[in-house]
Amino acid sequence: MLYLIGLGLGDATDITVKGLEIVRRCSRVYLEAYTSMLTVGKGALEEFYGRELLLADRDMVEQEADGILKDADVSDVAFLVVGDPFGATTHSDLVLRAVTAGIEYRVVHNASIMSAVGCCGLQLYNFGETVSIVFWTDTWKPESFYDKIKRNRDMGMHTLCLLDIKVKEQSTENLMRGRKIFEPARYMSAAQAAGQLLEIVQNRREKGEELAVTEDTVCVGLARVGAEDQAIRAGTLRELASCDLGGPLHSVIVTGHLHPLEVDMLRLFTSGPSGLQSLRTMDGSTCVS
Amino acid sequence: MLYLIGLGLGDATDITVKGLEIVRRCSRVYLEAYTSMLTVGKGALEEFYGRELLLADRDMVEQEADGILKDADVSDVAFLVVGDPFGATTHSDLVLRAVTAGIEYRVVHNASIMSAVGCCGLQLYNFGETVSIVFWTDTWKPESFYDKIKRNRDMGMHTLCLLDIKVKEQSTENLMRGRKIFEPARYMSAAQAAGQLLEIVQNRREKGEELAVTEDTVCVGLARVGAEDQAIRAGTLRELASCDLGGPLHSVIVTGHLHPLEVDMLRLFTSGPSGLQSLRTMDGSTCVS
Repeated sequence: MLYLIGLGLGDATDITVKGLEIVRRCSRVYLEAYTSMLTVGKGALEEFYGRELLLADRDMVEQEADGILKDADVSDVAFLVVGDPFGATTHSDLVLRAVTAGIEYRVVHNASIMSAVGCCGLQLYNFGETVSIVFWTDTWKPESFYDKIKRNRDMGMHTLCLLDIKVKEQSTENLMRGRKIFEPARYMSAAQAAGQLLEIVQNRREKGEELAVTEDTVCVGLARVGAEDQAIRAGTLRELASCDLGGPLHSVIVTGHLHPLEVDMLRLFTSGPSGLQSLRTMDGSTCVS
Repeated sequence: MLYLIGLGLGDATDITVKGLEIVRRCSRVYLEAYTSMLTVGKGALEEFYGRELLLADRDMVEQEADGILKDADVSDVAFLVVGDPFGATTHSDLVLRAVTAGIEYRVVHNASIMSAVGCCGLQLYNFGETVSIVFWTDTWKPESFYDKIKRNRDMGMHTLCLLDIKVKEQSTENLMRGRKIFEPARYMSAAQAAGQLLEIVQNRREKGEELAVTEDTVCVGLARVGAEDQAIRAGTLRELASCDLGGPLHSVIVTGHLHPLEVDMLRLFTSGPSGLQSLRTMDGSTCVS
């Protein structure tokens, strides 16, 4: 049996009791380590689970999946995924390979950032399409996520923005020379995402477009959701661009139409009395009905 | 401290290790018992957690919240919620009351149906607004959810439909006479939801509307997601209307534009070779690009 087991979002203790029991009896346990991260590392997980974990990076999952699935028809293999195995990233490829090879699989669900963001008080019912925001480079500054946010906002919907993660990236030179030397991991912060969004707003303004998002649009930055030291900050897009929420992972929500109860909840996460006020008055298009 | 603890979606063992530790040391533990359910009852949870649970029905949470929060400023109280505490249902009211009373709170996240539906292989990124489908009566047959599904499909997005739950409902007569006699709990099945949707499709056809959904639109029925005996069925809306997925809870997804990898995954959940075929050919508007 292949078990795909979600680890949730905080630390080692966020695994479910069911998941932990399975981890402890599997013959091999892989840890998917390239699409997300917990606040603790592999060592802490190994100590808590009482099991050695085999790190599965992107190359391994995409190119050596047969190794992961080896003997899974006659023994139990676990594949651990931060969050939920079918949350922000899906592992359909691995499942399909397993089924094709005649291997049964089972999913042990857990919290995903896709639903845990509800903790800021915005109702999941009121979210439209989720978008990803990638790191811009000097020569590549895609704006397509803005248009999706605009489409959601036009319908009054909130937008969850998942932020870029760069793990095991090679510099162009190292890539060309075939050197397996990797750059330090990079995780986009809420402030960086807000900064890119502000730049797009300015671009669109200069083009004379009607703006769906402005510097005063109410946004929410979330960091380390589910961990002891999680941080949530509600404020304008401009405020978010200069706020420091600490270590990764971060997410951003661009709000749409706000329900009064949602406003009451967001007030818990503003930075001061002026911030509380701004939620009502600063952005006409998102104020309370 | 007030702890809002998600129980996940399957049985007693789907609580997280962190959640279980907190449950075992709180002075009082409430179980929210009106917006969802696990495959096991209160007794099984009490046995596994090793704690007595106080049932919190809708009346209690809405009218006697102060009782739940009593002494939570000086001791620890847990409020258990099936799924995630901020998933399909939010408990913002209770949180706001706690904060107003000077009580700290913390959330222990878990799997929510809002993200666990990803297990059918449809990518959560490609979902639009979530809708609720309520039980129709002889005199009240709201169709507004159809228009939201239409709006999602027009943009190529999938729609998660959460299905009605009737717990502790009174008959009109008992309500008028003030008798606290409750009807048996009712949970809408995927087939019932599909049946109501088919009726709307027929209504709209008779009005000459251009149809966003037809009898051949690819849908997915999901039952008891996360439980050992979960059932997932992919097929046309017509097929779904006559399929029996067993006991509650059920959900339905009306698909939008399908990515090839999503089709490959849905094929795992069709009822036979003809079903496999139907995913490609029967509904022009949702076939693979």
